[in-house]
Amino acid sequence: MSAAEILPLEIIDKTVGQPIWVMLTSHREFTGTLVGFDDFVNIVLEDVVEYDRDHEVKRHAGKMLLSGNNISMLVPGGKPE
Amino acid sequence: MSAAEILPLEIIDKTVGQPIWVMLTSHREFTGTLVGFDDFVNIVLEDVVEYDRDHEVKRHAGKMLLSGNNISMLVPGGKPE
Amino acid sequence: MSAAEILPLEIIDKTVGQPIWVMLTSHREFTGTLVGFDDFVNIVLEDVVEYDRDHEVKRHAGKMLLSGNNISMLVPGGKPE
Amino acid sequence: MSAAEILPLEIIDKTVGQPIWVMLTSHREFTGTLVGFDDFVNIVLEDVVEYDRDHEVKRHAGKMLLSGNNISMLVPGGKPE
Amino acid sequence: MSAAEILPLEIIDKTVGQPIWVMLTSHREFTGTLVGFDDFVNIVLEDVVEYDRDHEVKRHAGKMLLSGNNISMLVPGGKPE
Amino acid sequence: MSAAEILPLEIIDKTVGQPIWVMLTSHREFTGTLVGFDDFVNIVLEDVVEYDRDHEVKRHAGKMLLSGNNISMLVPGGKPE
Amino acid sequence: MSAAEILPLEIIDKTVGQPIWVMLTSHREFTGTLVGFDDFVNIVLEDVVEYDRDHEVKRHAGKMLLSGNNISMLVPGGKPE
Repeated sequence: MSAAEILPLEIIDKTVGQPIWVMLTSHREFTGTLVGFDDFVNIVLEDVVEYDRDHEVKRHAGKMLLSGNNISMLVPGGKPE
Repeated sequence: MSAAEILPLEIIDKTVGQPIWVMLTSHREFTGTLVGFDDFVNIVLEDVVEYDRDHEVKRHAGKMLLSGNNISMLVPGGKPE
Repeated sequence: MSAAEILPLEIIDKTVGQPIWVMLTSHREFTGTLVGFDDFVNIVLEDVVEYDRDHEVKRHAGKMLLSGNNISMLVPGGKPE
Repeated sequence: MSAAEILPLEIIDKTVGQPIWVMLTSHREFTGTLVGFDDFVNIVLEDVVEYDRDHEVKRHAGKMLLSGNNISMLVPGGKPE
Repeated sequence: MSAAEILPLEIIDKTVGQPIWVMLTSHREFTGTLVGFDDFVNIVLEDVVEYDRDHEVKRHAGKMLLSGNNISMLVPGGKPE
Repeated sequence: MSAAEILPLEIIDKTVGQPIWVMLTSHREFTGTLVGFDDFVNIVLEDVVEYDRDHEVKRHAGKMLLSGNNISMLVPGGKPE
Repeated sequence: MSAAEILPLEIIDKTVGQPIWVMLTSHREFTGTLVGFDDFVNIVLEDVVEYDRDHEVKRHAGKMLLSGNNISMLVPGGKPE
């Protein structure tokens, strides 16, 4: 592993406490603050906004768990405006 | 793992005995009281209301087991009004 | 694990010999008496009624095995009238 | 495990040499004599009749192997008339 | 395991060097001579004829590897006329 | 294992440095020179031609990695004219 | 393993810090600089351009994680013009 390389789980770890944008295999998207995660890339978000094909559909207070086997994409820093 | 971080299974553990909202990969949704769970995120609910794309379709007395490999989202605290 | 918590396999174990309602990921449903199960949530039913989207389609005498990887929901006590 | 309980693999084992009805996740169905199986519920049938949504489509002499990951239902004793 | 029982992998092993008919989960079918296989039921065929829903579409000289996770059915002896 | 039998990974190993034809479960096809592979049947091709349902759509210089869990068919020697 | 052979993970390792083109099983495509990866072929990209069936849809600053179980193709060097 070259020194400059960053492991996927490291990226997620560095994003804890910060905004993140998550896309599921079903094209649903969620943005929120990353609160935690595990080795199966199950993740916990807080203050979540839910999108369906780019359109905001719902805001969720509190925490939300998204299951790793349905996640296809994670973007630290959140969804570009 | 940073101190502030919360593991997914911890979130579920803290929700035992409380309302939770569950979405399956097939877009069926269930709310109810979380009674138990295991490491595969199979979960047991009680006093369950079943929704199909946001519309209430059925109420189930007693307990219900939802299989982890079809769960895509869990929201402790239940479904927002 | 909090004392009040019930593990999914415990729920199934307590239902052996009693009615249970099973939904597959393909929306087929089965009710019957739970005769047995294993750690992969493969289950064995007896005196089975088969439904397709809520409509009764067939009655099966004898035993039936349903494979765990296609089960999405189990409800001890059977299907509400 | 309560004494009366029957494990799924036991049911299959007791059906070796007898008629069995198998449904795949793709709704294809097969009846035949169960000749063998393994822990992944791959099964071997003999003298097989193939159905597509309840209609007989083909008879196969000799043996047939059905792969466990596509099996959703097994009924010892065969398909009711 | 009762003496008369034949394990799935035994059936495949006994078919090496002989005709076999293979159906994938995508309804594509292949017949050919079974040249080899492994524990994941990946199989190697030779002199292959390819069918799409029962109609011959292509003949392949040489060898072909079919991946186990897409195979739903194997019939030693080949496809009935 | 009978002497004449060839294991799937052996077939792939013997094809390194030679043409190979790969079909994905999504019906996309690729031909190219096999450069490498691993036990999960992830494979590396070079000088790749991409087809969509038998029609050539793109040529790729350089190397390409195809993920094993989406491969359904491999034909050493390449795609018949 | 013949000397000339290159393992899939080696190809990815050699591409760290360079352009790469990634196709998901859902036909979404991404190009960007490969920043890291793990044994499950989860990969981290930077300065990402997103395509949907060959048409550019979005540019993402910062990093992006793509989950291995949805990746079907990786092309070191990026997407041909």
